[in-house]
Parts: sequence; structure tokens; C-alpha cells
Amino acid sequence: MTEHYISSSVTPLDNLDVLSPFEVARLQDKSQGGLYNLFRQCALAVLNCGSELDSTRQVLNRFREFDVQISQKHRGVQLDLINAPATAFVDGELIQGINEHLFSVVRDLLYVADKVDGCCEGLTPSAMITNQVFNMLRHADALKPHVKPNMVVCWGGHSIQHEEYEYTKRVGYEMGLRGLNICTGCGPGAMKGPMKGATIAHAKQRINDGRYVGISEPGIIAAESPNPIVNELIIMPDIERRLEAFVRLGHGFVVFPGGVGTAEEILYILGILLQEENRDHPFPLIFTGPAGSEDYFKTVDRFIRATLGERAAGLYEVVVDDAHEVAERMRLGLNQVTDFRKQTGEAYHYNWQLRIPYALQQTFEPTHDAMRQLNLSRNQTEHELAAQLRCALSGIVAGNVKEPGIRAIEEHGPFQLHGAADIIQELDLLLQAFVDQRRMKIKHEDYEPCFELAS
Amino acid sequence: MTEHYISSSVTPLDNLDVLSPFEVARLQDKSQGGLYNLFRQCALAVLNCGSELDSTRQVLNRFREFDVQISQKHRGVQLDLINAPATAFVDGELIQGINEHLFSVVRDLLYVADKVDGCCEGLTPSAMITNQVFNMLRHADALKPHVKPNMVVCWGGHSIQHEEYEYTKRVGYEMGLRGLNICTGCGPGAMKGPMKGATIAHAKQRINDGRYVGISEPGIIAAESPNPIVNELIIMPDIERRLEAFVRLGHGFVVFPGGVGTAEEILYILGILLQEENRDHPFPLIFTGPAGSEDYFKTVDRFIRATLGERAAGLYEVVVDDAHEVAERMRLGLNQVTDFRKQTGEAYHYNWQLRIPYALQQTFEPTHDAMRQLNLSRNQTEHELAAQLRCALSGIVAGNVKEPGIRAIEEHGPFQLHGAADIIQELDLLLQAFVDQRRMKIKHEDYEPCFELAS
Amino acid sequence: MTEHYISSSVTPLDNLDVLSPFEVARLQDKSQGGLYNLFRQCALAVLNCGSELDSTRQVLNRFREFDVQISQKHRGVQLDLINAPATAFVDGELIQGINEHLFSVVRDLLYVADKVDGCCEGLTPSAMITNQVFNMLRHADALKPHVKPNMVVCWGGHSIQHEEYEYTKRVGYEMGLRGLNICTGCGPGAMKGPMKGATIAHAKQRINDGRYVGISEPGIIAAESPNPIVNELIIMPDIERRLEAFVRLGHGFVVFPGGVGTAEEILYILGILLQEENRDHPFPLIFTGPAGSEDYFKTVDRFIRATLGERAAGLYEVVVDDAHEVAERMRLGLNQVTDFRKQTGEAYHYNWQLRIPYALQQTFEPTHDAMRQLNLSRNQTEHELAAQLRCALSGIVAGNVKEPGIRAIEEHGPFQLHGAADIIQELDLLLQAFVDQRRMKIKHEDYEPCFELAS
Amino acid sequence: MTEHYISSSVTPLDNLDVLSPFEVARLQDKSQGGLYNLFRQCALAVLNCGSELDSTRQVLNRFREFDVQISQKHRGVQLDLINAPATAFVDGELIQGINEHLFSVVRDLLYVADKVDGCCEGLTPSAMITNQVFNMLRHADALKPHVKPNMVVCWGGHSIQHEEYEYTKRVGYEMGLRGLNICTGCGPGAMKGPMKGATIAHAKQRINDGRYVGISEPGIIAAESPNPIVNELIIMPDIERRLEAFVRLGHGFVVFPGGVGTAEEILYILGILLQEENRDHPFPLIFTGPAGSEDYFKTVDRFIRATLGERAAGLYEVVVDDAHEVAERMRLGLNQVTDFRKQTGEAYHYNWQLRIPYALQQTFEPTHDAMRQLNLSRNQTEHELAAQLRCALSGIVAGNVKEPGIRAIEEHGPFQLHGAADIIQELDLLLQAFVDQRRMKIKHEDYEPCFELAS
Repeated sequence: MTEHYISSSVTPLDNLDVLSPFEVARLQDKSQGGLYNLFRQCALAVLNCGSELDSTRQVLNRFREFDVQISQKHRGVQLDLINAPATAFVDGELIQGINEHLFSVVRDLLYVADKVDGCCEGLTPSAMITNQVFNMLRHADALKPHVKPNMVVCWGGHSIQHEEYEYTKRVGYEMGLRGLNICTGCGPGAMKGPMKGATIAHAKQRINDGRYVGISEPGIIAAESPNPIVNELIIMPDIERRLEAFVRLGHGFVVFPGGVGTAEEILYILGILLQEENRDHPFPLIFTGPAGSEDYFKTVDRFIRATLGERAAGLYEVVVDDAHEVAERMRLGLNQVTDFRKQTGEAYHYNWQLRIPYALQQTFEPTHDAMRQLNLSRNQTEHELAAQLRCALSGIVAGNVKEPGIRAIEEHGPFQLHGAADIIQELDLLLQAFVDQRRMKIKHEDYEPCFELAS
Repeated sequence: MTEHYISSSVTPLDNLDVLSPFEVARLQDKSQGGLYNLFRQCALAVLNCGSELDSTRQVLNRFREFDVQISQKHRGVQLDLINAPATAFVDGELIQGINEHLFSVVRDLLYVADKVDGCCEGLTPSAMITNQVFNMLRHADALKPHVKPNMVVCWGGHSIQHEEYEYTKRVGYEMGLRGLNICTGCGPGAMKGPMKGATIAHAKQRINDGRYVGISEPGIIAAESPNPIVNELIIMPDIERRLEAFVRLGHGFVVFPGGVGTAEEILYILGILLQEENRDHPFPLIFTGPAGSEDYFKTVDRFIRATLGERAAGLYEVVVDDAHEVAERMRLGLNQVTDFRKQTGEAYHYNWQLRIPYALQQTFEPTHDAMRQLNLSRNQTEHELAAQLRCALSGIVAGNVKEPGIRAIEEHGPFQLHGAADIIQELDLLLQAFVDQRRMKIKHEDYEPCFELAS
Repeated sequence: MTEHYISSSVTPLDNLDVLSPFEVARLQDKSQGGLYNLFRQCALAVLNCGSELDSTRQVLNRFREFDVQISQKHRGVQLDLINAPATAFVDGELIQGINEHLFSVVRDLLYVADKVDGCCEGLTPSAMITNQVFNMLRHADALKPHVKPNMVVCWGGHSIQHEEYEYTKRVGYEMGLRGLNICTGCGPGAMKGPMKGATIAHAKQRINDGRYVGISEPGIIAAESPNPIVNELIIMPDIERRLEAFVRLGHGFVVFPGGVGTAEEILYILGILLQEENRDHPFPLIFTGPAGSEDYFKTVDRFIRATLGERAAGLYEVVVDDAHEVAERMRLGLNQVTDFRKQTGEAYHYNWQLRIPYALQQTFEPTHDAMRQLNLSRNQTEHELAAQLRCALSGIVAGNVKEPGIRAIEEHGPFQLHGAADIIQELDLLLQAFVDQRRMKIKHEDYEPCFELAS
Repeated sequence: MTEHYISSSVTPLDNLDVLSPFEVARLQDKSQGGLYNLFRQCALAVLNCGSELDSTRQVLNRFREFDVQISQKHRGVQLDLINAPATAFVDGELIQGINEHLFSVVRDLLYVADKVDGCCEGLTPSAMITNQVFNMLRHADALKPHVKPNMVVCWGGHSIQHEEYEYTKRVGYEMGLRGLNICTGCGPGAMKGPMKGATIAHAKQRINDGRYVGISEPGIIAAESPNPIVNELIIMPDIERRLEAFVRLGHGFVVFPGGVGTAEEILYILGILLQEENRDHPFPLIFTGPAGSEDYFKTVDRFIRATLGERAAGLYEVVVDDAHEVAERMRLGLNQVTDFRKQTGEAYHYNWQLRIPYALQQTFEPTHDAMRQLNLSRNQTEHELAAQLRCALSGIVAGNVKEPGIRAIEEHGPFQLHGAADIIQELDLLLQAFVDQRRMKIKHEDYEPCFELAS
């Protein structure tokens, strides 16, 4: 294929295209409050799924001639794509999965624009966020009642080695054979492998309604384009709501090797599970990788034991190089989840009961100032410390792959982190190990740390 | 069947039951702002579909022991019905269509409670109402893009004679044979017959997705319970939004004989079509009845010519006793609608272009005072006069079948109407003719006029 | 609609059109062994469904210009209809249900032509017939495993009074509300009413896969065209295999008022149920009609008691004017059938166990000679006598509505029947009562008895 | 998983289980004419799909304790599996795809047993075979009318190298992206890779009804178990009917590297295409492999040019290491097929027009005698020589992987082949090249040639 850009008109497959003229106008509105810029950025990300570029800036730069226009026709909405990435097309036809993704973007951007405030007077701020996440997932038709817990969230790096990628496919395959569904954060690597494996397994089991849920957010989507296998794409407004969506929608969690981002997600989960109120909730959480990747979880496990202690280390299992075992444990864990939800009358489709502390729900803007104010000492509960550590890592991820973070580092230099000496040291060891394991980026020669540990 | 009340627990068929705890609480809230009373009243109406009672008061009184409780289970929402009408059940099982209706009520009451204001800054009040109607229909999944115009709204009386009822079935049958769908206001008579006829025709044509849309409102639903054939029940918040829903969703209109309510609907439509801006819009509008029912439309036609003039009379066709002809003309009319929407780029699924004057969108509260202030003179445009006449008739319908209206008449005596002498006289003749034709109620000996024409 | 004949090309909806060139040739073969004549006759019958003509001869005569040609196109088979009855079309398009029926005819005629002999060496003649009926029903996709017994065969007259017709709709409605399916012999009257009623009830219960099975045969189909509601049309090669298809496919039986033909079917059933081997089989059999039609079943009941005795009379129930009661009893009866099949390991979808005597399976050619040789005396078992009586009545039906029978009577005069005096007398009384009740034809002035009782 | 055998009862998903007691008895019949042995062998093959064993004898030996019993229950047919391969189960549940395959075996064995002769008097022997293949495919529901030509048959070795296997996946993926379906001969390697690739591509294109057709035969199925992705398994009675099924069902052909069997299939195709009558038929035929596998097709191409000449070599294209190009050419080729079928009125779903010479339809029993009588000289047409060469290779494949062939070689020593010296020499070179390229078996040290070239 020699051409790199294609212009084309596409219409959605189903009733996603029932928009009002006001909604169409909002999507085309290039003013400050309008949705055009966000829409264009997400649409480009979705179209760029075959690409190897994993920096938002690179993507936006390469396709700076890209434009998307939306209009209403008598049969419904039409999108006109101008200078779109040719990889999204086969013989001039947009790949159907990508077509769906475009309209998922439309759906979610409009919904958030509509709803961001108000809806539920009398609720606490924390409950309001939980409710908003619920409303977004329901609006995206992602909540399926009457279905026994079977949604496995897979986390891990999007730039992993070939062997690790093959392993994520095997784990997805074994889970798919057991009728489990897959939810990831979109993008390649550990976000894609389990879905491919599950697709083959679902075909063998004649499961026609297998779910491959991808939950993304505008800030990251360009760097981690959803794979077209994703058949339910959901764009949450920010990372905190996105993480809450994973936790409330998913019934079990598998973590593959990754980098700092993956460690951040682990800390987020531990910050929740260490809450006293959540102590009795069954919550399958398995860390796994192929032979040869043991170091990643050794590093993470060591860090958790050293900073959060043994109770935290008891919340997860580590399985090395045994996809079958992972799937078996997950199946048993999901049975416990099912029993628990039945006993407590909790909905199968949304985990209302799990308490998420407000600290973990709030948007953490990783400014230099905010990073400097983090408390990385031990004068707090374990779950509070987990939340602080997670913010530290979140900032570091932002400094590496998110646009504003990258720019801030360029302007103000590395972040300054404060806290107890041994914790800071553990953080230092953790990050150093990731760099040594080449976990920070695939091209490790391009890597520059975006933080400094203050003494 | 000897028992008259049944208590039972029901769960919905599909994902209508994905509710948040906050929504469940709102439906159970018996305080002023809560939804319980409205919910109980609508649920009872839906369950009482087999009944012959056509007064809301009678229904509420007879089933005063009825209660409905909603709760969240691990598999989804559950409704507990206490002392529900036994006619809704077959061998102890709730009829499936009624089950669906219960959850349509839940869906629409919660949606309205959520949205009633706000959503769209910068729009005119009229555009906001149109947009709200659009949002409600979309939320009810009633807007189907990619489908050629085929939705025929049928209006007419809910207490008509057997011959007229049989005729509505024949018309529905002929339209169903041509693949047309039916939308009515719920209830028996002309609201039910076309659906029964279309059901048989759709079976013969192997149309499995025939649509039988019923659009109701809380104020009237108890008196006009939806028939279980209705497979899309929509509860609009009030009569004005309900009428707008008909007009924007429907592609063609058939009016069968009815009473004052039907005449009111005719005036509503004429009030719209007489607008200058709507002059070029194809809008199939057919008045029809069996042999023996000619008088009704003669009366109406005479009234329209005398008050609104010949142009108004040119907006509709009258067909007597020829179901085949009605269906043929409707099919041709819908072809014109299709062509027009294609040319103008208007959506097939929602008639945005048709201008509805704000006067017709506003809630008319038929208090004695409001009725007294109506302008029934000729010092205004035809469409303005149509709107005023429609309000007059609306008040009269309220005084007959809606709870508050009945009570107001009991307290304050008949409404007083002002206006030009000949118009008032025509109104008098119209109503007298309806009474003579026994169009005001089936048991005409119970009828008492709820208005007086002021000199 | 003023035109009476339409010529049109039609293609089937699904894979019924995968025919080989050899099969196409056979359908076009006008030679002695070819299928053309049979195909043309059945196709015409199917197209003539709206007609009031109930004599095969009249139908064939009126549409003597009708022709049907079949050809293979790249997308599948195409039928060209020349001078077909206009009533089968709506706006020039063949009604979809009739389209399906045409291809059911193709399917069944080809299958029989292919299979009539051979298939199963080592079986008794009786078992071979039972197996052939099974093979035909399976090939027609009429056997649905995994489904609890719910198929109710409805028998009765095709020319019944309006009140009786309305009653068959009510019974079909009540059965449809309980999820039951309907199987009849095609044609109007009691063959159509239950399907219409069940269609409405299935719509209310949201049953999208309701079954309306029509089982016909080439000799009768022109006089009793299948109604387009029939969504599974099966053409059995002769009346005996057709009756066996009813008995093995159906799980319960409702008999409405009819004429001689209905009485014949009752005798066929009793001939089976009186077999010693079938004594323990639950077999719901209900005779029912509206108020005003009691005489029919009184006549039949009297005849059965007088000729076959009390045990025969204990095999059925009579319900007068209570559709709800009929449906309730049928539901309970089907529960017993379900239990029995479970216990005995018998298939839900085909009643292999029921023993049908070979005498009832053999084609009875009602020639004057064969009629003369019937044994209507009491020197035989009850079930044998039932079979003989059934042949007598079968001959009489043939003499009235089937082509060769009518011709034979015209040539040779009435049939001569021999037997015991009191039985012959009862037969005489039965037929006289039917004539008095106008059960032999609706236009009773046209009726001429086709038989004489020999002394 | 430590256990190797599982016993379990399984029931089919759909109406494959509507069997007569006579059919059940035939499947259990262990006598000479009974189907039990064949059924057991095929059932075992289907259950053994995960195995690495590629010799029928090894499979039968390892699972000699395996048994399968079939019985009729009230809900349908039940299979009891005793000591079945544990790899067919996940957590004690049979993989759904394998469940389907078991009942496909039942379907096809019974159908063949029923039909093997007779059906169509007046046809030539060749036409009768073509008709039988048609009837079997239709009975297996494999003929889909109304669908544009999109079925690509993929041939090639079942024991190929990893790189070649990965390439077959890529080709399948590119074809799947273009909406094409895959048909292979079952088994691993080139029979499985294209289906896996297409499965992923179909998921991305939201094609839910992708077809993965596997056509096998009792003699080979144990050595080449169908992969569970196969969602239409068809068991043809012998290799000649199997090859005809490929040719008449498929619309385009891709040949991957393989061994002698693959070369045999190539000769079969050339034997057909070299027929004068087939000269104008578009017939996409592409030989392709990854970089590094060029030698295989060089060898084959050289052999074809040397024995059959340049015209034969013009019937196919060779594409090296370009999956995208293969898919593009196939798409264009299928467009030509579509046009040709439209022009000539040929069915999309079965290629009736292609003439297959009777010589290629007849079962070739590769006895020592038959092999000795082959004519491998040039005193015949090209297509006749192709057929003779194909028989020679067929015998060689049988001698390697089919039970009776292996036994015959053990008893009587290698086959003796006669013919023109240069042709025999080319055959010798061909086979030697295959051995050198390790194409005869993966474990080439086990390979022993089963033939000798007679001087």
C-alpha cells in the first residue's frame, strides 16, 4: 500500500447516528467550549490504530492535515474524513470496527459534554463520581444485567517484548475458552494480546457475543489507539474515572508486565483493597508473565512489601508462565465473586459496594507543584500511602507520554518528590529497575527520567 | 377467572433494569418531589389494560389497595406488585407485553425527572421543547435511522361503535400489508384496532419487527391503558409534548371518528399545517370511517370550513368506507414524504423541519380563568385561531376525562368561553352534533356538558 | 382492485432455492411421471388463498390460464407466475407468506418424488410409513427438539358460521396467551380462526417464533388454500400420511364444529386411541364450540356412544362456549404429555410410541367398489369398527369436495354401504343431522348426498 | 491438566439431533453393514483435535479404549463419550466447536448411508456423482444462495514450518479483512492458519457469520483432525468426492507449500482446468509462501512445465511473501468469477458448469496392481496425463498416511510405476526434491519412500 492518506465519507451501522442538530453543531464547534478539537483528536487516534507511533505529539504532527466533518443526512449522521490514515482502510473501505469506534467517540464526548454536572443532588462528591461513571457506562450500553460475572480486566504494558505478547494471547485464549470476556485500556501489547487470544477461543466455543471492552480517555487515546477487535469502546473523561470504570465494571483482574503505568494501576487497586470496608470483598487479582519476565513482578512485589507491607502483598497472586493456571484461578475467583454478589444482593453488572476513597477519585493534575506536595511518608494508613505513591507514579507516566506533562518537564525540569527516606529510596529502586529492564519505553536510548527524588 | 387481584414479582426482559440505587430510591420516594405517586399511577394503568373502566378516578378507586415496590437484586431490578389487576396475568404470569410496559414507565419517568431543564443553552424556548421531545424519543429508542418513512399515526375515539372498531382493524390490516407501522395514543377503540389489523398483516408479510408505538402521558394513561400489542410504549410528560412526539415521529396521519378529543387533535395539526413555513411539507392526513359514520367528519369538515376557511379544508382528504383506498393513498403520501426528506436532507426519523408555533407547545392548563381568556375571534391568523380553538376543546376534554378538570367543574361550574359570535356558534353546533352522535361518551345518558358559551 | 390476474417473477427468501438442474427439470416435466401438473395445481392453490371458491374444480377452471415456470439464475431459483390470482399480491408484490408457501410446495413435491420408496429395509410396512412421515416432517424442518410439548392441532369445518369462527379465534387467543402453537389442515374457518387469535396473543406475549403449521395434501389444497398466516406449510402426499403427521406432530387436539370431514377425523383419532397399546398415553382431546353450536357435538357424541360405546366416549371432553376453560384444560393436558414423554424417554417432537394400526395408514380409495366392501358391523373390535366408519365418512367427503369422487358419483350414482342395521341407521341419523344443521356445505341448497345406505 | 481421558454425555445445540430410532440403531450397529466403526473412528478424530499425532494408526491405538454410544432422550439425541481425549474438554465441558463436529459426523454418515445410490435415473455416471456431491453439500447446509462468490479454498501441508504457518495466518487475515471466507481440508498447518487469521480479521470487520468450512473424509480425518474453528464440518465419503466438493463449492484457490498431497491436489485442479470445455472459466488459482519457501513452488512449477507444458503453467500465479498481494489478486479474481456466473446464469453457490472428467471422479484404489497400470506416458491429452500423474501421487500419499496403504506397503513392498522415461524421471526429481526440502513428513528421519520407479 503506497498511499498514506485517504479521504472518505462514512455512516454508522446502527442508531448511534441519531443526533440532534444541536449536537452536530457542538461537535463542529471550534471555539473554546466546543467539542471539535477533542473530537478531531480522538477520531484521529481511532483511525490511527495500525500505527507504531506511541506519542500523542508524533501522531498529531504526522496527521496535521487530518480533518473530520460531521453532517446530518436524511438517513442519519455522516462523517467526512479528510486525509485520514490509510491503514484504517481496506480497499478504500473503512474497517468496520474502526467505524464503530468513531461513533463511540461521538457518543461519549456528547454525553460528557451534556452531563458533567448536576444530576444528583444530595449525594456526596464521591457518590456523585461513582454515579457519573455508572451513567456513562450505562449510556455506552456496557452494563449487561442477568449475566454472571465474567469480565476480566487485563492490564500491562503496551510496548512489551514479543514473548510477553505471545503469552498475553495464550492467557486470553485460556480465559476465552472458559467463556470469559476481556476488558483493557486499549492500545497494543498487553492491551491487545488477550483480546486476540480470546477471539480465537470464543470462535472455538461458538460464543458470538464475546465482549472486548476498551476503556480509554482523550488524554491517552492518541498514544494507545484502540485495536479494531475492541467491540465496545468507551471514552471516559479522565484517568480517574477511567480507572473507576475498570474497577466497577470488571469482575477479575490480570496484570501482565508493563512499566511505570502498570505499577501505578497496581497501586490504585491496592489503595482500594486496603480499605477496611473492602476487606471481605472477593477480588481476583493475578500478576502473571511468561518465563523470562519474572523480574518485573519481583521488582513490583518487593516494592509493595517494602512500602505497604505484607497485608498488601496478600491481596494478589503471582503466576509464572502458566496460562492455563491463570485462567483456572480466575474462573474460581469469579465463582466467589458471583456467590458474594448473590449473597449481598449486589448487581452483577456494576460493583457499587466497593468503596473507592475520594482521594483516588479526584483528578490528580501532575504539576510540579502538586508533585512536590505529595506525602510519601509513613505517617498515614496503608491505603493513603498507596494513593500517594500512585499519584507520584501517575505524574511520572504523564511526564513521559501525555502532552501537557511532557511540555511541563521541558519547561520546568524534573519533578521534585518529598517523603520518608526509605520510601523514596524504594521508589528510586523501582524506577531504576524498570529502566534496567527496559520497561520505560521500547527504545530505551530515547528515555529520559522526568523526575528527581528530593533529598 | 374468579380472583381479581394478584400479587407477584416481576423482572424485566432486557437491560431496562440497569438502575442506580439513587434512581431506585427516587421511584420509591413518597415525598412531594418523589416519583412514587406518579409511578404507582402509571404502573396501575399499564396493569389495568383489560379493563372497561375509562375514568382515571374509577380506576384509582377500584385498585386503591394496589402497591408497587422496586428493589435491586444481583441480577437487576425487581418489581413487586401487590394487589394488581388479575386481568394482567395468565396463569399467574404477567403478560409479557405488560411487563415491558412497566419498565417503559420506569424508563420515561426517571428520564424526565433527570432532564426536565437545562440541557441546551442558547436555544429558544420552542427549540428547547422540540429538543426535549427528541431526547425523550431517542432515549426510548424510538428513533430508527436508515428506515424509509413508514410510521402512520392513527387518531380517533377510544369508545367507538363495533362497526367503527372493525373498520379501524381493516385499515390497519391494509396498511400492515404494505409494511407500514402504527402509532397511536394507547387505549382501546381506534387506538387498538389498527394495531390488531396490522399485526395480522405483518404476520402474513413475515414482518417480524413491526412497530406498534403507543404514546401516552401520566394524566391520561389510567383512562386509556395501553394495549399489550403496543411494543413501544412512551410516556411523555404532558399532552403538548405528547402531541409534538406524534407529529415529529409520525410520517402520515389517519384520523378515525372520535369525539371532542379527536377534534382537538385535528385542530392541533391544522394549527401547525396552516403555518406559512410548513406550506411545502408533504403531510399525508386522511380522515376516514366506515359507512354509517360519515356524519362525524361531515360535522368536523363543516366546522373547519366555517371557522378556518377553505385553505384549512384543503389540508386533508376524507375517505369513506374504503380501507384499501386509505392504505393506497397513505403509501403514495409516504413516498412524497420520503422524496421531500431526501431532497431537503431532513432525517427520516424525526421531523425537525416542521415548525410548531410556541403557542401549541405550551402547556394549556384548562382552568376556568384560562378558558375565559381564550380569544375565539377572527382578529388573528388562521393558525392562531386554530390554536385557540384547540385550547377550548382541550379544556373540554379535560373537563370530561381528566381528574383535575372533572374536579374543577364540580367546584366552579362550567367553563365560560368568549369570542366572535359566529365562531362560538359553530363551536356550539359542533359540540351539539357530537352529543347527538353520541360521540362524547358511549353511555350518553351520563354525559353532562362541562362548558357554557358566554354570549 | 380491478385486475384479476397478475404475472410476476418471484424468488424465495432463503435457501429453499438451492435446487439442482435435475430437480428444476422434474418440476417442469409435463410428461406422465413429471411433477409439472401437481406443481401447477398446488401453486395455484397457494396463490388463490383469498378466494371464496371451495371446490377444486371451480378453482382450476377459473384460473385455467395460470402457468408457473421455474428456472435457475445465478442467485438461485426463480419462479415465473403467469396469470396468477391478483388477490395474492399487494401493490404488485406477492404477499411474503404466499411466497414462502410456493417454495414449501417445491420442497415437499421434490422430496416425495425422490423418496417414495426404498429407504428403510427391514421395517414393517407400518413402520415404513411412520418413518416416511417422520422424514418428510424433518425435511420440512417441522421437528423442533428441546421444546416442551406445545403444539395444538385444531380441527373443524372450513365453512362455519360467523359466531363459530369468532369462537375459534377466542380459543386460539387463549391458547396463544399460554404460549401454545397451532397446527391445522389449512383453509378458512376453523383452520384459520385459531391462528388469527394466537397471532394476536403471541404479539402480546412477545413470542416472535410462534408456529402456525398447516398440513395439506395435493388432493384437497385447491379447495382449502392455506392462509398466509401459516408460517410452516407442509404438503403430505395423501390424506392418510397427512392425518398421521397431525397425530405424531401434535401434542393436543381441539375439535371445533365441522361437517362430515370433521367427524371422519374424530373417528380416525378414536380408531387409534381405542387400541389397547395406546391406553396409557395421555392424549388431550377436546371438542368445543360456542353457545348455539352444541348440537354438532351432541350429534357426534350420540353417534360415538351408539356405535363405539362408552369407552370411546371417555376419550374426549366436551367444553361449551368457554375458550378460557379449553386453554386451561389443554395446558394441563400438555403437562401430562410432557411428564409421560420424559418418563418414557419419548421424543418431544415426534410421537413414535403411539401405535397407528396399518388399516388407518393405508390409502383408502373411495371407489364404489371399495365403499361397497366396507364392514360396518359389530363383529370386530371397537378400533376396527372406528376405522371402517372412518372410511365410510372419508368416501362421503371425497364424493363432496374431491375431484375424482365428484366425478365418480356423477358417473355411477351414490355409494352403497353395507353393515349392521343399527349402525347403518346411526350413520343415517348422523348425516341427516348434519344436513339439518347445514353442516354439509354453507349453501345447503346446493347439497346433494353422494351415498345411499343399502338395506 | 493431568488426566488424559474423560467420559461425558453431550447433546447437540440445534436440530441435528432429530434422528429416527432406525438411524440411531444404524449408528450403533457393529455388524459389517453397520455404521458403528466408521462413526467411532470419525468421532475419535474430531475429539482428538488438539493432538500432535498425525498417523491414523497411532491415534486409533492410543485411544483404543474410546467408545461412543448414541441414544434417544425425550429432548433429542444424546451421545455418551467414554474415555475420550481430555484435550477436547475445558473444565469438564466439551468445547462447543467439537460438539458441533460430532453431530456433523452423525449427519453426514447417515446421509451417505441413506443415499449412496439411485436417486437420479437417466443421468450419466459423471453427472450422478456431481449430483451426489451437490446433495451432500446441500444437506450439510453448505450452499448459501444470494451470496456473492467469496469462498476461498486453501490447500497446503498440514506439517509446515513455523514461518510458513505464520504466513498462512497473514494471508487468511488479509482475505478475512476483505470479507472472504475460508475452506480447507481440516487439520493443522496450512489448513488451520488461514482460518485463525480470518477469524481475527472478521472480528475487526464485525463479520459475525464468517464461514470456516472444513471438508474431510473418513480415511484421512483421524490423521488431520478438524480444528474447532471450523464451523462447518463436512465429511465426504471418499477423496474424489471430497476434491469435487472443494472445486464446486470454492470460488478461488490458494495453495500454500505442502508435500506430495498438495502436489496431488494441484494436479487434480490442472487436470480439470486443462479440459477444453473449461477454458473460459475464470478460476483464481494462486500458489504462495513466505520468503524462504520459494523452493517448493519452484519444484512444482518446474515439474508442471516439464510434464504438462506451458499452457498448464499459465493457469496459476505464484506470489512470494506478500499476503496483501495475494488477497488483492484473489478479490479481483472473485470479481471475475462473479461476473462470469451472472453472465452465464450459473449459481453462485455451486459450480455446475465446470466439467470434471469422469477419470478424476472415480475412486482410485491405490493397490499395487492399480499403480502398476497407470499410464505415465505422453500418448494422451495433457488433462489425461495430469489425471494419471495425480493418481500416482495419490497412491504415494495413501502409502504414507492412510491405513490400508501403509499396510499394503508393509505387505507387498513399494509401488511399481510405468511410463515415459522423462516423465518418470521428473516424478523422481519431484519426490527427491520434496524429501530434500523435508516436505514428506516433519520428522524426516522416519520417512521411507513407498514407491519405486520401474525402469
